[in-house]
Amino acid sequence: MINKKAVVNPYDVEGEVNYDKLIKEFGLSQIDDNILKRIEKHTKELHPMLTRGIFFAHRDLKWILDEYEKGNKFFLYTGCGPSGPIHLGHLQTWYFTKWLQDKFGVELYFQFTDDEKFLYKNLSYEKIQEWTQDNLKEVIAVGFDPKKTHFLIDTKHANLMYPEAIKVAKKITFSMVKSAFGFNESNNVGSIFYTAMQAVPAFLPSVMKKKKIPCLIPHAVDQDPHFRLTRDILPKLGHYKPASIQCSFLPPLTGAVGKMSSSEATKGILSTDSPAEIKKKINKYAFSGGQPTLEEHKKLGGNPDIDVPFQYLKYLFEEDDKKLKQIEKDYKSGKLLTGELKKYTIEKISSFLKEHQKRRAKITQKDIDKFLV
Amino acid sequence: MINKKAVVNPYDVEGEVNYDKLIKEFGLSQIDDNILKRIEKHTKELHPMLTRGIFFAHRDLKWILDEYEKGNKFFLYTGCGPSGPIHLGHLQTWYFTKWLQDKFGVELYFQFTDDEKFLYKNLSYEKIQEWTQDNLKEVIAVGFDPKKTHFLIDTKHANLMYPEAIKVAKKITFSMVKSAFGFNESNNVGSIFYTAMQAVPAFLPSVMKKKKIPCLIPHAVDQDPHFRLTRDILPKLGHYKPASIQCSFLPPLTGAVGKMSSSEATKGILSTDSPAEIKKKINKYAFSGGQPTLEEHKKLGGNPDIDVPFQYLKYLFEEDDKKLKQIEKDYKSGKLLTGELKKYTIEKISSFLKEHQKRRAKITQKDIDKFLV
Repeated sequence: MINKKAVVNPYDVEGEVNYDKLIKEFGLSQIDDNILKRIEKHTKELHPMLTRGIFFAHRDLKWILDEYEKGNKFFLYTGCGPSGPIHLGHLQTWYFTKWLQDKFGVELYFQFTDDEKFLYKNLSYEKIQEWTQDNLKEVIAVGFDPKKTHFLIDTKHANLMYPEAIKVAKKITFSMVKSAFGFNESNNVGSIFYTAMQAVPAFLPSVMKKKKIPCLIPHAVDQDPHFRLTRDILPKLGHYKPASIQCSFLPPLTGAVGKMSSSEATKGILSTDSPAEIKKKINKYAFSGGQPTLEEHKKLGGNPDIDVPFQYLKYLFEEDDKKLKQIEKDYKSGKLLTGELKKYTIEKISSFLKEHQKRRAKITQKDIDKFLV
Repeated sequence: MINKKAVVNPYDVEGEVNYDKLIKEFGLSQIDDNILKRIEKHTKELHPMLTRGIFFAHRDLKWILDEYEKGNKFFLYTGCGPSGPIHLGHLQTWYFTKWLQDKFGVELYFQFTDDEKFLYKNLSYEKIQEWTQDNLKEVIAVGFDPKKTHFLIDTKHANLMYPEAIKVAKKITFSMVKSAFGFNESNNVGSIFYTAMQAVPAFLPSVMKKKKIPCLIPHAVDQDPHFRLTRDILPKLGHYKPASIQCSFLPPLTGAVGKMSSSEATKGILSTDSPAEIKKKINKYAFSGGQPTLEEHKKLGGNPDIDVPFQYLKYLFEEDDKKLKQIEKDYKSGKLLTGELKKYTIEKISSFLKEHQKRRAKITQKDIDKFLV
C-alpha cells in the first residue's frame, strides 16, 4: 500500500488517489442509491458511469433535481483546456455529459480555457490556438446537440466573459487562490486571475437570459477547487451556487496512480489514435493485473482492479454490465488471459474511436459556427 | 519642512512629493533644454507645461524624436480611470496630450480603465459604467481629432485587450506587482492581474497594424509603476518599450500635499463646475500663500509657490508667460492681494471651463461612436 499523500487540484494530480478520503476532504456528497433512483425517474435508465461509481460524488444534485421537477430546468457546463490532443480521460466526461444533455433535454455551455492553458503551460499563444481549433472539433464529434450546445472560448468571447470575471475576481483574494491551488508569489498574475474566468460559465446564461438558471457541472474531481471558490462567490453576486457531479480519473496506461495525460505517449490513448496505435499502446504500455506467466495466471487469476485494460472497459468501453461482470469473473479465475483481455479491449476502443473519428472527419467550419455563442 | 516620506504609486499618493527625488527613485530623465529644443524643432513653439517644468520628466523621449525624424511616427497613449467626475488634474494631462497630437499630427489611443476602477473602488459595476459614459464625453470635449483618436474601454474591448493582456500577464509574477504597487495577499485577484490590461494599449496598435510603432505615454507620474513593468515586459514579447512624458500633480485646493481628487469636494474643481461653484471653491477652500492680514501682505508679500490659485494659473490657466511672471512678481511684492489673485484665477478657470462645457454639451452618441475602436 502506497502511503504517499495524493495531490489533487487542477494543476497537479499525483499519487494514489483515495476517493473516499477526497469526498471528506473536499466536502462532497457521495452518489448513493437514493440519488440514482431520483435520476432514473427522469432518465429511465442509468448510465454505466453512474452505476459503476465512476461519477462518484456531487454537490447539490438533489437541489438540481428538485428544481427540475418544479419545471426549472438546469443547464450543463463543462469544458476543455486546449493544450494538446484529446485523450480518453477527456472523452469520459464529455460522453457522459452528452448522455445528460440527451436524457434531460438541457442546454450545455462548453468552455475552452485557452487563456488558462496559455498561462500555465510552456506553449506559445499560437500553439494554444491551434489546439483550440483541434479540440473543438473533438468536442463536436462527441455528438452534442448543436441547437442546445454553446461554445465559449475564453479569448474569443472575452467581451462576454471578462466583464463578468472581474465581478468574481473582486471577491477573491490572493490568499484564497493560494490555499485553493497551492500557488506562491512566483505565480504569474494571469494564472492568479484565471479562476475567475472559469467561474463565469456557471452564471453567464443567467446573465444573458436575465433569469436565475440552475447550473450542473460534470467534471473530473481535480477541478473541484475552482468550483469551490465559484460556489463561495456566486451567491454574493446574486447567482445560484453551481451544482456538480464529479468523476474519478481514468487511469493512465501505466497504472492506477495519477491521471491520463496527452503529453506523454506512454500515458494515454488519444482520440485520434488508429487501431494499430491503440494495439501498440495497450500491448506495450498498459499495466496488467495478470500474472507473470501463463501457468501462474491460470492458477492464481488476474486482478481486474489494477488491470488497466479492464478499467478502460469499466470506465468507458463495455456498456453491457453482464458482459463486464463475466469478464471480471473470468479474469479473476484465470480463465481469461491477459492477452485475450487486451485483445478484446483493443477491439472495443478501436471501434468506439472509429465512430468518433468518422464524425470528426465530417465536421466543417459551418458546423463549428453553429456552436459558437 | 515636512519630512514624511512621500508615497507615489497609482493607488496611493501621499505626503509632499519631491520631484527631484522621484526622478532618481523611479529612474526617470529630466526634461532639459536640449530635449525642449528638439521638441520645438517640430512643434515651432513650446507648450507652457513644458517650459514651466510641469511635464518634468520622461523616458526615451529622445528615441521617440529620433524615430519621428526618420519618418517613423509614434502614437500617443493616455487614459482615464472612470470612477467619478473629471477634475482639473485630469484636464491638465489631456489638454497637453491634445497639444502633442495637434503638433505632431499623430494617432492617440485613449484607454478607459473601467475594470481597474471597479476592482479597486467600492463602487458597483453599474456606477462605473455610468462614469465611463460621462468621462468619455469629457475626453471628447477636450477637442481630440476624432479621425486620429481611438477609445479603448477595457470591458467593452475585452475581445481585443484580454488576449494581449494574458501575454503580458504570463511574464509578471505576484512578487513583481507586490513590489511595484505595495500589494499584499488580501488584494483581489482582478487587481493583481490589472496592470497587464494597462500595458496593452502601448502595443495594441502595433499588433493591429502588424508593424512596430513607437508609443509615447503622457501621464501623471503616479502611473509610472505600471509603465515600468510594461517596459520590462514588452521587449520580451517583441514589442518596443513605450516612451513616456510625465507631469507633476496639480495641487488639491487644500495645498501642495497629495494630488487633486474628485471624491472630496474640498479637494478639487470639477470640469462641470459652474462659475458660482468655482468662485465658492476657490474663495472658501483654495490654500493661499498670502499673509493673514492686508497690512502684513502689503508689507511682506505672498508666497506663490504654495499659493493654490497661483499654481492653477501656472499649471493650466495662464498661457501668457509675461502675464504669469507679472502676477508672480506683484504677488511676491505684496502689490497683488490674495483676493485679487483669487478673483483673476476664478475668471480664468471659469472662462476655460465654459468653453469646455460648451463643447461637451454638443456631444451626441454619433460623436462618441466616431471615437470607439
